[in-house]
Amino acid sequence: MLLEAIYHRPRLNWCYAYDRETIHLRLRSKKNDLSEVFAYIGDKYAWEQTNELIPMKKLICDEMFDYWECSVKPPFRRLKYGFLLQSGHEQHWMSEDEFTITRPTTPNRLFEYPYLNPSDIFIVPDWVKDATFYQIFPERFANGDPHNDPAGVLPWGGKPERDNFFGGDLQGVIHHLDHLSELGITAIYFTPVFTATTNHKYDTTDYMTIDPHFGDVETMKQLVIACHERGIRILLDAVFNHSGKKFAPFVDVLDKGEHSVYRDWFHIHKFPLNVVDGIPTYDTFSFDPIMPKLNTGNPEVRDYLLQVAHFWIKEVGIDGWRLDVANEVDHQFWREFRKVVKQANPEAYILGEVWNESSNWLQGDQFDAVMNYPFTDAVLDFIANGTLDAQGFAHAIGKQLSRYPQQASEVAFNLLDSHDTPRLLTVCEGNKNKMKLASMLLFTYSGTPCIYYGSEIGLDGGQDPDSRKCMEWDETLQDRDLFNFYQRLISLRKELPALRTGSLQFLLAEESATKLAFKRQLGDETVLVLLNNDNSAQTIELVVEQCMWLNTNNDITIEAKGNTLSVHLPAYGYAILTAIK
Amino acid sequence: MLLEAIYHRPRLNWCYAYDRETIHLRLRSKKNDLSEVFAYIGDKYAWEQTNELIPMKKLICDEMFDYWECSVKPPFRRLKYGFLLQSGHEQHWMSEDEFTITRPTTPNRLFEYPYLNPSDIFIVPDWVKDATFYQIFPERFANGDPHNDPAGVLPWGGKPERDNFFGGDLQGVIHHLDHLSELGITAIYFTPVFTATTNHKYDTTDYMTIDPHFGDVETMKQLVIACHERGIRILLDAVFNHSGKKFAPFVDVLDKGEHSVYRDWFHIHKFPLNVVDGIPTYDTFSFDPIMPKLNTGNPEVRDYLLQVAHFWIKEVGIDGWRLDVANEVDHQFWREFRKVVKQANPEAYILGEVWNESSNWLQGDQFDAVMNYPFTDAVLDFIANGTLDAQGFAHAIGKQLSRYPQQASEVAFNLLDSHDTPRLLTVCEGNKNKMKLASMLLFTYSGTPCIYYGSEIGLDGGQDPDSRKCMEWDETLQDRDLFNFYQRLISLRKELPALRTGSLQFLLAEESATKLAFKRQLGDETVLVLLNNDNSAQTIELVVEQCMWLNTNNDITIEAKGNTLSVHLPAYGYAILTAIK
Repeated sequence: MLLEAIYHRPRLNWCYAYDRETIHLRLRSKKNDLSEVFAYIGDKYAWEQTNELIPMKKLICDEMFDYWECSVKPPFRRLKYGFLLQSGHEQHWMSEDEFTITRPTTPNRLFEYPYLNPSDIFIVPDWVKDATFYQIFPERFANGDPHNDPAGVLPWGGKPERDNFFGGDLQGVIHHLDHLSELGITAIYFTPVFTATTNHKYDTTDYMTIDPHFGDVETMKQLVIACHERGIRILLDAVFNHSGKKFAPFVDVLDKGEHSVYRDWFHIHKFPLNVVDGIPTYDTFSFDPIMPKLNTGNPEVRDYLLQVAHFWIKEVGIDGWRLDVANEVDHQFWREFRKVVKQANPEAYILGEVWNESSNWLQGDQFDAVMNYPFTDAVLDFIANGTLDAQGFAHAIGKQLSRYPQQASEVAFNLLDSHDTPRLLTVCEGNKNKMKLASMLLFTYSGTPCIYYGSEIGLDGGQDPDSRKCMEWDETLQDRDLFNFYQRLISLRKELPALRTGSLQFLLAEESATKLAFKRQLGDETVLVLLNNDNSAQTIELVVEQCMWLNTNNDITIEAKGNTLSVHLPAYGYAILTAIK
Repeated sequence: MLLEAIYHRPRLNWCYAYDRETIHLRLRSKKNDLSEVFAYIGDKYAWEQTNELIPMKKLICDEMFDYWECSVKPPFRRLKYGFLLQSGHEQHWMSEDEFTITRPTTPNRLFEYPYLNPSDIFIVPDWVKDATFYQIFPERFANGDPHNDPAGVLPWGGKPERDNFFGGDLQGVIHHLDHLSELGITAIYFTPVFTATTNHKYDTTDYMTIDPHFGDVETMKQLVIACHERGIRILLDAVFNHSGKKFAPFVDVLDKGEHSVYRDWFHIHKFPLNVVDGIPTYDTFSFDPIMPKLNTGNPEVRDYLLQVAHFWIKEVGIDGWRLDVANEVDHQFWREFRKVVKQANPEAYILGEVWNESSNWLQGDQFDAVMNYPFTDAVLDFIANGTLDAQGFAHAIGKQLSRYPQQASEVAFNLLDSHDTPRLLTVCEGNKNKMKLASMLLFTYSGTPCIYYGSEIGLDGGQDPDSRKCMEWDETLQDRDLFNFYQRLISLRKELPALRTGSLQFLLAEESATKLAFKRQLGDETVLVLLNNDNSAQTIELVVEQCMWLNTNNDITIEAKGNTLSVHLPAYGYAILTAIK
């Protein structure tokens, strides 16, 4: 037994409250090293009477480790625990400070979840688990009101540049809600809509007004009402890490220097504000002088931004916030933010932009989820780039799932492209079959899938600004086959709860292989997802428990022969099978 | 290289802000496996221009692992990083998701400390680093006012029982402050002083009044003033996990049941409140019906307790709080508590009672420190119980130091006995030499040492109630040799800053050995601590850099011969040496 590989710590993903009664315990061990693992649990004040051994299951694995998990419901809401590790006949007990051959007889030095306090539980909004998101970059989605077009607006469909404008606005979105409803969308994430100088609006001038080229607060209210009537929720983009250069407090500091009452609203290292050898004398997003970093540790700034957060939820009725450059803002601020937002709307979804390991924000006190770019990378590396084999893909997924509390994975924001990346079709080098295969993974994974506007009708584009092309509204120029494909996937996901919140288990994910199979299970609903990531046909054979399966692609029934299910898949083909009870 | 043993995660003790400019990085590896470790660091927005390799030092080790550390001062307050691991000629680069043979050329998948926000820094009160604490159990320290004695008070010095009283009070403490000043004490931790029914007062009746047998709010104010005049700070005990059975809201619930307006102040599972088969129908401390658990998730309870916390700091002038059963109260509450307390007094010390791994509370948003019982265990197991050898002691210390941010270790509350444990002298089975040796470790370790009232003059006692004997005030019956010993230790610690906040490195800590040596270093001050935990004399030989040393026990100079320092120690002897510059 490789004791050095075994890891547990009484917090983060290793020990957390799942709900008011349940604690999840996880343990890491060297891959294929342990045969059985048990949690050794009890109440610390009645150890003799309550201690017991609970078997743990292998939750998932990656290339180096197995991750074990169990659920525990401590009757008195207090949990003392250790682990019993078995590898064949070898056996070790794990306490907080040591491994022993003999069973610890007192609970003193075991691990502890001291008391299951309701206010410490990480509660996520249920609706997100069932949602399908659509991301809109408003300047490029639809021009519904030519009267508010910016000066120098270009004809719709021109080549996107860093600084040009095509006149998209909120009225355009209102006009095209049928498109979203038809597709099956139930939530929209808007990149910024507040007054700003750029086409992407990430340089906020005024957090309390809609950019005049997009409409006004009334237009946004109408949009919210129209969406809610259709069962579509709305997320706005909160750019709280930095403001824009025309944000009034920054203008005041530029103007008055050290004498400005707003001098502590920013992180200023030297007056006057200046840029020396490309480096601003004040902190900014990256080194961009037009995006001065806000001092969210300053109570005035904090209160101002919290008012903003509250206003758009309470007064305008939005359903949550996507938080730009969320990882560079202080945790104290986000804790206050969560309180204000959840008080205004307990069902609000708080989604942070964090590209890296995100545990620091996913403990229940800050975000509900992050933009799951590690998932993006895994899917694209497997399907589009070919740098991962089936096993590598399963390991990348395993690593992600093992890192976070289950509830965070249940509302993870999964995407394959965005305004910050090349378009999916372009990453797939125009190969629609690969694009479909990647999207199939998106819609059969836990968390909430998001389609980047236009990808569903074949919009392409490289790294921004190219990925921010105008939406194509001429149906004859839209890829309706793709649209129908997405429509079916969304619909299938709605039909099969296991695809949303079921457990996930890889059944086939071998080294150097292009065949992949995994199972999603929820209660007595079992779904198998099979795919062939190869340019020639392949047959997948799986040992299964159930005999009869329905192929949801074509409604054909498949029968397992002697417990073996055999499914022939064309090049880049896939099958989503449901067990027939 | 055993890659499975290598651990890092971008938070907790592994990556944290030490101050406004500095980030500490730590990495774990299999013991003696790596020859060199480097942090591979840079700014993510200017990686090419800023990336560099920083050597890491071995901070400490335990029986299985080495812990490496380095300090980094990122010029733009953003840090992307990975690690370069070397074991002889073998070399691996560590990113967030993988180990590679080749150097990662982009920062994308490296670890990240996104931005050094001042409000996320864990700031601890500096005075605690220099303090020597004294713990007082007020009912047993001194009876300064016989008029407030409880009915049935027993003669001072009788046998302590669970439920008897001897008349100790706050006036008694005021009378005896000379004793504390003479000893060198600079801070007092009082077990509870608020109105309650028991002799230990952990069953609060009223959080806003001093127990009438101890005095009143005025007496406490006088005590605070008298202490502050002597440079002594005061910590009170906040019993916020549970109240007592006579706490008015609980009385109201007992009385009115489900109709009480206070029904949500507690965790009640069934009305009427009852005890069935030893288990209360409401949550309590342990299963004790007289200690109903407070629902700190209820905003009314929270606001009430925060008012209490604020009042005693702001109105009475105390210098901090010790938090009883702190681990069973919700984290959200403690976060609010820290804000209120630090706003009332930024220098206040927040000390939680947590007996286990305490990372969950030591991240800067909750406590400054915890009662360091793992340190107690290590010292007692080494010196008194003999269940640890020198190596085992060093490993136990290594494990503790590796677990927490440095600032938490700098203000750790170190103790060898308390009202919750047997007395040190009793644990040492009356062996004063062992007691001195253990105490010497307490006063040469980082963190703040605490003496339990009376242990300094030879009070003994087993597990409570026996450890709560009356203080002996007859000097002829006090062990003045012990008193002088503690006085010298305290004074030495004041003289040598390295003993307080210097780095700690074990120089000698072998398997099966009873000889131990470690170095404390701060700037150019070097202190060596040598001890002989054996009943016969031993000589300790150490290779040292400096030649001349002063033995602080006797002011005799010792010279290293050919870089080897040789110190003869009697049975249970020790030496604290300072390098002569």
